[in-house]
Amino acid sequence: MSTLLLERHKGVLHVTLNRPENRNAMSLQMVIELREVLAQLDSQVRAVVISGAGGHFCAGGDVKDMANAGGKDQVQALNRVFGALLQEVEALPQVVITVLQGAVLGGGFGLACVSDIAIADHKAQFGLPETSLGVLPAQIAPFVVKRIGLTQARRLALTAARVDGVEAGRLGLVHFVEGDSQALAQRLDEVLGQVLRCAPGANARTKALLLASVEQPLGPLLDQAAQWFAEAVMGEEGVEGTQAFVQKRKPRWVG
Amino acid sequence: MSTLLLERHKGVLHVTLNRPENRNAMSLQMVIELREVLAQLDSQVRAVVISGAGGHFCAGGDVKDMANAGGKDQVQALNRVFGALLQEVEALPQVVITVLQGAVLGGGFGLACVSDIAIADHKAQFGLPETSLGVLPAQIAPFVVKRIGLTQARRLALTAARVDGVEAGRLGLVHFVEGDSQALAQRLDEVLGQVLRCAPGANARTKALLLASVEQPLGPLLDQAAQWFAEAVMGEEGVEGTQAFVQKRKPRWVG
Amino acid sequence: MSTLLLERHKGVLHVTLNRPENRNAMSLQMVIELREVLAQLDSQVRAVVISGAGGHFCAGGDVKDMANAGGKDQVQALNRVFGALLQEVEALPQVVITVLQGAVLGGGFGLACVSDIAIADHKAQFGLPETSLGVLPAQIAPFVVKRIGLTQARRLALTAARVDGVEAGRLGLVHFVEGDSQALAQRLDEVLGQVLRCAPGANARTKALLLASVEQPLGPLLDQAAQWFAEAVMGEEGVEGTQAFVQKRKPRWVG
Repeated sequence: MSTLLLERHKGVLHVTLNRPENRNAMSLQMVIELREVLAQLDSQVRAVVISGAGGHFCAGGDVKDMANAGGKDQVQALNRVFGALLQEVEALPQVVITVLQGAVLGGGFGLACVSDIAIADHKAQFGLPETSLGVLPAQIAPFVVKRIGLTQARRLALTAARVDGVEAGRLGLVHFVEGDSQALAQRLDEVLGQVLRCAPGANARTKALLLASVEQPLGPLLDQAAQWFAEAVMGEEGVEGTQAFVQKRKPRWVG
Repeated sequence: MSTLLLERHKGVLHVTLNRPENRNAMSLQMVIELREVLAQLDSQVRAVVISGAGGHFCAGGDVKDMANAGGKDQVQALNRVFGALLQEVEALPQVVITVLQGAVLGGGFGLACVSDIAIADHKAQFGLPETSLGVLPAQIAPFVVKRIGLTQARRLALTAARVDGVEAGRLGLVHFVEGDSQALAQRLDEVLGQVLRCAPGANARTKALLLASVEQPLGPLLDQAAQWFAEAVMGEEGVEGTQAFVQKRKPRWVG
Repeated sequence: MSTLLLERHKGVLHVTLNRPENRNAMSLQMVIELREVLAQLDSQVRAVVISGAGGHFCAGGDVKDMANAGGKDQVQALNRVFGALLQEVEALPQVVITVLQGAVLGGGFGLACVSDIAIADHKAQFGLPETSLGVLPAQIAPFVVKRIGLTQARRLALTAARVDGVEAGRLGLVHFVEGDSQALAQRLDEVLGQVLRCAPGANARTKALLLASVEQPLGPLLDQAAQWFAEAVMGEEGVEGTQAFVQKRKPRWVG
């Protein structure tokens, strides 16, 4: 991997966007490598942590790729591939956590929007600068609306304004806002500890259910959910969870 | 009723979940009794207040029922019945108010999510512990997403983390956060006073319209709403409301 | 125009609701005039600012029109026309900014809900008094749900409670809350400056994309967005934006 650092530790895959000389701008190569990594995750991986090298998360798309893309069809295809990455991250059965420092712009903002849990430095800078450059936050906009709602998405996208981590917390874009690197690391540890207390199969189905809730009609979804519930209760995790609860011990899936 | 206390007072039905020895865990019997009470509400009831006996709202489902349920099909059916209860509470024409103290977990969290107005003690404990037990918040998850949005629902469901009343207020899960029992009671009185100032028929149709807004396309919904508006203006409540306004007196529906 | 003041200044159309003797209540004549103004906007107008004369934004519908409307069919038609206005304001390609002081009630509340950016005085009074008068916030309710979500919309519509500007900020109804008229004017200047830094065509398509995100399935929307992105990159604004960026100058669309 030329654009990513990967480190695996106790069921957690740590992915570091690693183009610090470009504030980790999302090049086509980085998109390809991220998609490859995610496609090859095995079921032993229970959480994916995405952060950036060198004090920034990701400053957006890489302008050079666009310049080299050639004609309109190539630009369109290149753009759509980034959207495919966001769709894939969102649909991952694993819990996805983003750690957000420095620039979280454009495509970086989009990546933050598809994480299950986002932890931000209070000084991180969030923004959608696209329309100030004459283009659109095209693949990003739908995920921003899903994340923070239409009301706040409108202001950010139509003014290209920047907001800091504190404001991002207030807007519901991130779940935690921390004062420095050490506090970010501690919060990440705490959140990972909580995630690893939850059964991986149950978490994966719960995540699928939450995502489906946004799009599917309620009645059939509750029917499906009841079936999944019964399968979970009768399944290995449900049996182990119940026994552990009765025996006052930790279930096996807790590290 | 073996699991509920019922008290009716000036158009308001107060329902108290009453299994304090189990922190009001939602047994099958309780679900059956709640559905029965709600199915028999007459049109004189304008608001339903749900609270819990003994300092807790509801600590979730009752594990014993699940253990006794038998096979997978029975577990599935039992689970789905709880979802049916939530659907019915959500669709009630009356205004539903929950008063949330102590444990508000799993099914109790779900019940809070379908209330029109939620008032919480600042120390109440909200959480979705299901996946830490190897099962899913199956019937609850869609209502949590509807209540607080996908972003916050993800964190709570995939970490089994607990949040207190203050945080629940910040997440938009509850409308009011109070410091003690007396303040909870005062807030409830204030809210009931506001609800009873509103015409019952107009409130019922407005509630139906709000719920429909989430699922139906805008144009036809506005057509339907215009018809309801005209019926309301020409109807008994609209005429009385206008006359009361002109005559500077309270309309008849105000107690 | 008998109910509106219009003033055009550097690509911005300032519309002042001007029936101060009625706290700018939304008469049929005002609805007709607003729709006419918006239908005739030319592409040189990049932002529309809506405010009210005399210290109030808009105190709701005009009761007299309703009294004069005649039969049920006329009331229904009159009501639906207001919804059509809200649909048209929402769909405008221009950025719509509301400046909210004093009464922001009923129809005025609805108008605030379809603005892209809302700036409120901290003492402004927001509310949906309809059901306390025996009628419904019929054309308004769906836009309130879209603006602040079902949870908060329920409380406001079913209690007719009033909230001030500070609370409106907390509910996500408005983006900015200011302490006095001068601060409102400064904030408006700042926001307009940001909007005018963004390319008008890119902003219009981004706004359409954001609005579509609420209703359309994700996959096809991202396909469409990629096509729009490529058109923007290859188009006049994209080329100018890139050149300006490289040449470290402001693009031509900045005043």
